[in-house]
Amino acid sequence: MTAPGNAKVAIVMGSQSDWETMTCAAEVLDELGVATDVRIVSAHRTPDRMYDFGKGAAEAGFEVIIAGAGGAAHLPGMIAALTHVPVLGVPVQSRALSGEDSLLSIVQMPAGVPVGTLAIGKAGATNAGLFAAAILANHDAGLSQRLQDWRAARSAAVTERPVD
Amino acid sequence: MTAPGNAKVAIVMGSQSDWETMTCAAEVLDELGVATDVRIVSAHRTPDRMYDFGKGAAEAGFEVIIAGAGGAAHLPGMIAALTHVPVLGVPVQSRALSGEDSLLSIVQMPAGVPVGTLAIGKAGATNAGLFAAAILANHDAGLSQRLQDWRAARSAAVTERPVD
Amino acid sequence: MTAPGNAKVAIVMGSQSDWETMTCAAEVLDELGVATDVRIVSAHRTPDRMYDFGKGAAEAGFEVIIAGAGGAAHLPGMIAALTHVPVLGVPVQSRALSGEDSLLSIVQMPAGVPVGTLAIGKAGATNAGLFAAAILANHDAGLSQRLQDWRAARSAAVTERPVD
Amino acid sequence: MTAPGNAKVAIVMGSQSDWETMTCAAEVLDELGVATDVRIVSAHRTPDRMYDFGKGAAEAGFEVIIAGAGGAAHLPGMIAALTHVPVLGVPVQSRALSGEDSLLSIVQMPAGVPVGTLAIGKAGATNAGLFAAAILANHDAGLSQRLQDWRAARSAAVTERPVD
Amino acid sequence: MTAPGNAKVAIVMGSQSDWETMTCAAEVLDELGVATDVRIVSAHRTPDRMYDFGKGAAEAGFEVIIAGAGGAAHLPGMIAALTHVPVLGVPVQSRALSGEDSLLSIVQMPAGVPVGTLAIGKAGATNAGLFAAAILANHDAGLSQRLQDWRAARSAAVTERPVD
Amino acid sequence: MTAPGNAKVAIVMGSQSDWETMTCAAEVLDELGVATDVRIVSAHRTPDRMYDFGKGAAEAGFEVIIAGAGGAAHLPGMIAALTHVPVLGVPVQSRALSGEDSLLSIVQMPAGVPVGTLAIGKAGATNAGLFAAAILANHDAGLSQRLQDWRAARSAAVTERPVD
Amino acid sequence: MTAPGNAKVAIVMGSQSDWETMTCAAEVLDELGVATDVRIVSAHRTPDRMYDFGKGAAEAGFEVIIAGAGGAAHLPGMIAALTHVPVLGVPVQSRALSGEDSLLSIVQMPAGVPVGTLAIGKAGATNAGLFAAAILANHDAGLSQRLQDWRAARSAAVTERPVD
Amino acid sequence: MTAPGNAKVAIVMGSQSDWETMTCAAEVLDELGVATDVRIVSAHRTPDRMYDFGKGAAEAGFEVIIAGAGGAAHLPGMIAALTHVPVLGVPVQSRALSGEDSLLSIVQMPAGVPVGTLAIGKAGATNAGLFAAAILANHDAGLSQRLQDWRAARSAAVTERPVD
Repeated sequence: MTAPGNAKVAIVMGSQSDWETMTCAAEVLDELGVATDVRIVSAHRTPDRMYDFGKGAAEAGFEVIIAGAGGAAHLPGMIAALTHVPVLGVPVQSRALSGEDSLLSIVQMPAGVPVGTLAIGKAGATNAGLFAAAILANHDAGLSQRLQDWRAARSAAVTERPVD
Repeated sequence: MTAPGNAKVAIVMGSQSDWETMTCAAEVLDELGVATDVRIVSAHRTPDRMYDFGKGAAEAGFEVIIAGAGGAAHLPGMIAALTHVPVLGVPVQSRALSGEDSLLSIVQMPAGVPVGTLAIGKAGATNAGLFAAAILANHDAGLSQRLQDWRAARSAAVTERPVD
Repeated sequence: MTAPGNAKVAIVMGSQSDWETMTCAAEVLDELGVATDVRIVSAHRTPDRMYDFGKGAAEAGFEVIIAGAGGAAHLPGMIAALTHVPVLGVPVQSRALSGEDSLLSIVQMPAGVPVGTLAIGKAGATNAGLFAAAILANHDAGLSQRLQDWRAARSAAVTERPVD
Repeated sequence: MTAPGNAKVAIVMGSQSDWETMTCAAEVLDELGVATDVRIVSAHRTPDRMYDFGKGAAEAGFEVIIAGAGGAAHLPGMIAALTHVPVLGVPVQSRALSGEDSLLSIVQMPAGVPVGTLAIGKAGATNAGLFAAAILANHDAGLSQRLQDWRAARSAAVTERPVD
Repeated sequence: MTAPGNAKVAIVMGSQSDWETMTCAAEVLDELGVATDVRIVSAHRTPDRMYDFGKGAAEAGFEVIIAGAGGAAHLPGMIAALTHVPVLGVPVQSRALSGEDSLLSIVQMPAGVPVGTLAIGKAGATNAGLFAAAILANHDAGLSQRLQDWRAARSAAVTERPVD
Repeated sequence: MTAPGNAKVAIVMGSQSDWETMTCAAEVLDELGVATDVRIVSAHRTPDRMYDFGKGAAEAGFEVIIAGAGGAAHLPGMIAALTHVPVLGVPVQSRALSGEDSLLSIVQMPAGVPVGTLAIGKAGATNAGLFAAAILANHDAGLSQRLQDWRAARSAAVTERPVD
Repeated sequence: MTAPGNAKVAIVMGSQSDWETMTCAAEVLDELGVATDVRIVSAHRTPDRMYDFGKGAAEAGFEVIIAGAGGAAHLPGMIAALTHVPVLGVPVQSRALSGEDSLLSIVQMPAGVPVGTLAIGKAGATNAGLFAAAILANHDAGLSQRLQDWRAARSAAVTERPVD
Repeated sequence: MTAPGNAKVAIVMGSQSDWETMTCAAEVLDELGVATDVRIVSAHRTPDRMYDFGKGAAEAGFEVIIAGAGGAAHLPGMIAALTHVPVLGVPVQSRALSGEDSLLSIVQMPAGVPVGTLAIGKAGATNAGLFAAAILANHDAGLSQRLQDWRAARSAAVTERPVD
């Protein structure tokens, strides 16, 4: 599903178990024809990998980074500390506290280091993909059209009446 | 402080009282030399104005919209429903529930309509400005440099030891 | 179950998946002999449909609107912004946060645009139906009697002692 | 401010200290030319008075009851148990828990006994008044016009730009 | 399991569905040889029954009342408003909010009308039974001994080491 | 205000700073003519004193113990573990979390060791005093009458209408 | 799994049911070659055992104590009150409130009596074991090496890319 | 107050504004005769400084690190990822959410990377100091005695009765 190399969007996550959620970001970007580079980068278990990734993100050509993590979710904020490339954060639903800990750990960043945070769980991952596409679409008329078509199709799919 | 007309960043808020918070977004963008168009657009009191603003945002040339609101904060999500331009949401601190209601009303968007949400209050507004700048900086080398300088200055200002 | 056309009560919801909850509103109104017009109107995916519905609600003859939504639940509040017809809001139980996000997004409306909010989930949907009936019953003696009978039957059904 | 006797709207509250909040309901109804009957009815300290008020509400000609209370706020729900007249609940902001206890105690009613709940505090009280007016306006063209004018004036008062 | 008539402890609950929880109170009192009178008394569906029960509780010879309810749980507080007999409240676990609403609705009573509140769910129901027994044991040496024995047996049953 | 020696009610608290809250318990019992023995007993700083107090409470003739504490409030539960005398818990309002931590630490006791918990703060302290009086009143006709008079006076003091 | 006698780490828990969680602490310490002494010590059901354990912990040679408990979790804080040996607390996930009550009851200790608190549930138990090992490793070069190897192995096990 | 160089305890914090809280850790360690090395190390503004500090902590001779931070508080967890030296975390009270965000961001660490978390605010900072002292006291008989004396003095200072 991923087409690394010259991808403008990186999708990183703290562990393999986050992939079930973060795959939604990859899928929607794939639908929109946007290449992604998907990696596991753990703030806590692989801090060196995270430093290297964050420090090199701009030079690697990434224009948006999507980072997903759960619990004391430090990955999105730490990457945002290491690069000026815009970082989107996806709070992965946690077992005990349903993702409230993930959400607060990602969104409550101090002034100076922003993380654009999406909803808890799969909806948030899908939306991170769409938000990344919207950023790129500012300078990619084809993508802009595909994004608008995607949105129009979603709207058209809403039926007039519910069915039992 | 604002330079409308050909601004690429719009800053909208639900009421005059949100300006105390949202001015932080305008200020940091002003520091970075990014023109902004600042407006009051109330989802609940001026839905037509919101509708017109949202529907016309792409054509008006906006590449990012920053929307701040408090309580049952519908403005960011509704604008995101009306345009494919990326929308950043700032939860304004509410009186009774300290902004927890604002945060959840903004961040918990359903799949399909993303709002990149920042922290509650002034830190969030400043960060919305920085995030908008980061998006524009992808295609503006001068701004990219100014953003990196701003970040470097912030880092350099951190003293080694606390003072009483 | 619904009898549109000259219904005085509209039941709208953000998506097909809300119908499992909102059907409780339709059912209790059906029991009470009150016609309803049931529609899917998504604030985020079909904002135009929502605008048309809200703007036309008074002229369409609706005297009460029941709106159900989950997560960042903007539908009830936005309809209340678009019409002076009274709007009842039903917070649909969300996956991650159990409906706390839905509840706060619906109930914490700013002064000027009220939404009469019911409990989270099916109990709230049933009660929205009963509340709508109570409003209509002020000017419909037959309905008032049926509503009182319904309540009396519920009371009479409460047994004296629990059974294992 | 109140014009009892043939008022169609009752405003009741648990204690004198709730009046600072609930006066907002009375004020907006007064602005709209709707007479109100304002009383202190404590569920916990004057249960007999509450019982009599609730049981007699329909016969007294009330078409809407607005009930405000804080903490373990039982007044709105108990009145809703005693009458089929629609009851609007206003959670008064509490000292320790900021009204979260008041809100949950009012809104989380079981199926069968609805309370249409408004926002915590003064905004909720104002909105309870507006909601009551909206109910009455269904059968009072003059009030309907005044309500629409009130809403239009609020919209018109929203300035285009914030001022420092 | 219950021995009404001259029981000093009443166990009341809002609905049949609360019995699964409240049976724990009845069981532990039964173990301790304390007669109980168990009833369904709904604050919202049978307010008259509640009034009669509360008003007559002292004369009926009850020395403690255990009241269990869920959601907007008004039963314990309302009974405490209707009688000077001490009332113990048991928050029944609710579906959406896990009993947090039940707990706050029961425990946050205003000054003047106390409810001695136990834990959410079955542990709380068992403890309400034990608390009731402890009250009676002040003037019943036999019961005091049985209560102390019950406690001692519980302590003795705690093994030294966990087993897999 | 306290009359130790043959007092049937003990009031204990974790620190001097809790006295501002707990004095409400002492005051209402004093009004009702009930002697109290007031002590500082810290679970964390004076565990031996707590141990001695708890173990000796029954023999000292206490029929009710009121224990107030804040934060990780262990005093009420630990005393309940050390004696079969009924223990009432008062959550003292904490600085950071407004007493939510105090409340949960006191009320969520496991099956076997009950604490009858009152509201957060001064209202809870007053109510602990009233609850203690209600327990004693079961076997003290004079106190029962004074308690009923106290309640009746509170009810009579509720005015019919609010004043500005 | 445990090697009591001259163990430097004690693992205590409030009940057999906590063992499912606390076994993670024992397991990781076993992996690291650290002997543990595992016991059930209930603050509420066996306060005497807790006093004896706490008072004797230093003399018994323990250098760290890991204490796990759920709900109104008093065990970690009470042991910390009884000994100057450092105490680590593990909030066991509770049924109704998902461990939020356990967490606050353990972490919100007053100044003077610290409990080093870990995450809710099994992750917290594992981490308590690792934290205990880190303390001992300050004076045990072999253990320090094994701990660093354990951490390195965990890092090395993080794959570069997620797999479906 | 600090005596760097051969200090075994480091105290780090995210910003100058945290010093008002963290000074309590330094003070209590100073009272106990434990040298500390106090620094500002911002995870978000000075990630390189954090990286260097964490990587070098063991070799610098630190046996315990105390880290305080607020909001999306990543400092304690990130340092714990960079070193095997035990890390204590202090949640600094935040403006909007009273430190709940700080607490969850620090305590909810994944299995493998522990942070021993103390209470929100100054009490937590004092306790971090005491916990650090307790760790060192395992191998420092003089410190152990001073710590026990400190605790005994605190206990002795608890008066028998509260004063008005």
